[in-house]
Amino acid sequence: MAQLIDGKAIAAEIRAHVKGGVADLQAQGQTVKLVSVLVGKPEAAEIYSQSQARCCAEVGIQFELQSLPETETLSEIKSAIEKLNRDPTVNGIMLNLPLPPGLNESEVQYYIDPYKDVEGVNPANIGFVFYGRPIIAPCTALSVLEILKHLGQTFEGRDVVIVGQGAIVGRPITLFLLQEMATVTACHEATRDLRRHTAQADVLIVAVGKPGLITGDMVKKGAVVIDIGINRIKEPGGETRIVGDVDFDSVNPVASVLTPVPGGVGPVTVSILLRNTVQAAREQLARRNR
Amino acid sequence: MAQLIDGKAIAAEIRAHVKGGVADLQAQGQTVKLVSVLVGKPEAAEIYSQSQARCCAEVGIQFELQSLPETETLSEIKSAIEKLNRDPTVNGIMLNLPLPPGLNESEVQYYIDPYKDVEGVNPANIGFVFYGRPIIAPCTALSVLEILKHLGQTFEGRDVVIVGQGAIVGRPITLFLLQEMATVTACHEATRDLRRHTAQADVLIVAVGKPGLITGDMVKKGAVVIDIGINRIKEPGGETRIVGDVDFDSVNPVASVLTPVPGGVGPVTVSILLRNTVQAAREQLARRNR
Repeated sequence: MAQLIDGKAIAAEIRAHVKGGVADLQAQGQTVKLVSVLVGKPEAAEIYSQSQARCCAEVGIQFELQSLPETETLSEIKSAIEKLNRDPTVNGIMLNLPLPPGLNESEVQYYIDPYKDVEGVNPANIGFVFYGRPIIAPCTALSVLEILKHLGQTFEGRDVVIVGQGAIVGRPITLFLLQEMATVTACHEATRDLRRHTAQADVLIVAVGKPGLITGDMVKKGAVVIDIGINRIKEPGGETRIVGDVDFDSVNPVASVLTPVPGGVGPVTVSILLRNTVQAAREQLARRNR
Repeated sequence: MAQLIDGKAIAAEIRAHVKGGVADLQAQGQTVKLVSVLVGKPEAAEIYSQSQARCCAEVGIQFELQSLPETETLSEIKSAIEKLNRDPTVNGIMLNLPLPPGLNESEVQYYIDPYKDVEGVNPANIGFVFYGRPIIAPCTALSVLEILKHLGQTFEGRDVVIVGQGAIVGRPITLFLLQEMATVTACHEATRDLRRHTAQADVLIVAVGKPGLITGDMVKKGAVVIDIGINRIKEPGGETRIVGDVDFDSVNPVASVLTPVPGGVGPVTVSILLRNTVQAAREQLARRNR
């Protein structure tokens, strides 16, 4: 049976480290503050922002939710973000998605100061990762790296297959692992023979949103399998349950390592957001002292 | 034997189209001007900038070479670029590489107005391509797309292997073809079993800089092979000759399509730079008229 990754334990380690970093900075007179921007009232984002507030409180990061009305225009959102960019007490800015229809998300993300963009989503930050000169890298990509580090493994020279190429998870991971010198294969809905690709992967990363997509026969013996899917399914009894994209029971005997859902990658990603915020504050302090 | 791509003919078609576009814009009172920035005197870049001048003259694009001294600091280069960004008579800006040692190239590219960045190299433009919202896409990537279009083919759903992941050629192509819905495998010097990957490619793209790297036994029967390598080799007789990364004689009987070197991708790329410049001018005119 595969070794199961305890994402909560890894996250707790990172958060302990972050807490120490916040205390260090406070001792130097630098508070750490994250502002989360919410446009309109998308339900999932409201729930996510409550969890951001809780996590920040736990490590001593000041948290502020900035709610903008759904009717906000592009130039009003731009002004709001530019005000946060100029505010020296704000170290990190995150923009909750989705934005109301009609707004181009990457255009709005482009307004966030690259040094305060703690999610690593500003197109310019994507480009700096592309050029191997990251300012802040995307959280999900960093969390996958963190999990391999925790196993004492690296990506260099390994055949990595990433299934799902969404802009928030799969694609940033693809770009980032190329920088880590993995031989990366990017699969998605247009891929013709998915099994032929997944069966060759030393490390298989799945971020699609389809329960049971990856079954044991699609996985190479001994592969590391990282499941980033989050799906709410209804049990025959009527209660709902959260599962990933990987069919746990059939993949478990084939893989050497497997991340469960829930409790795998998810908690690590949130703690990386906090770590990026502290790093941003540290960098801003250093620039002030230069 | 493979069908050989005539890059010069494709380039001539594009340039004829560009010439028409320039004339159209001039009829509307909009001249088209490209400024090429050269820092120091790197020999290859000086030769390249002469070829830029020639190509621009041929299609009626005004060309200006702006030479900055090798001792220029980052903030001096920044001011020079920002002046070009503000100049309404300048439609396209390109920055010749390499920059003198000590300058971070992607940081300098970041200063170029994304709408005037006709090479598509500003990290923000890379990010906008990543998000599927390109302002201007990288020339080499566009030229590979152009060659497949010319064949009446697309990349969607095809297994594409890209060997070589340099920041100027291989990596932009990888990112771009992902947007075109190819199943992309990115190989490079850390790849362990190159042949296993290349032998599965429907379309094999090579941009490494190693003559003879790809031999016939590494290519799937009927594959499209695009060779972007440029290598100067010495013949036994003493004269030098330019060859690509693909061993022409052994790959020719296996591939269905093959781009020769010289005369394949190279001429197409330069003509795409001109096309991007005209598109930038058209966009600037449209914004003025809005």
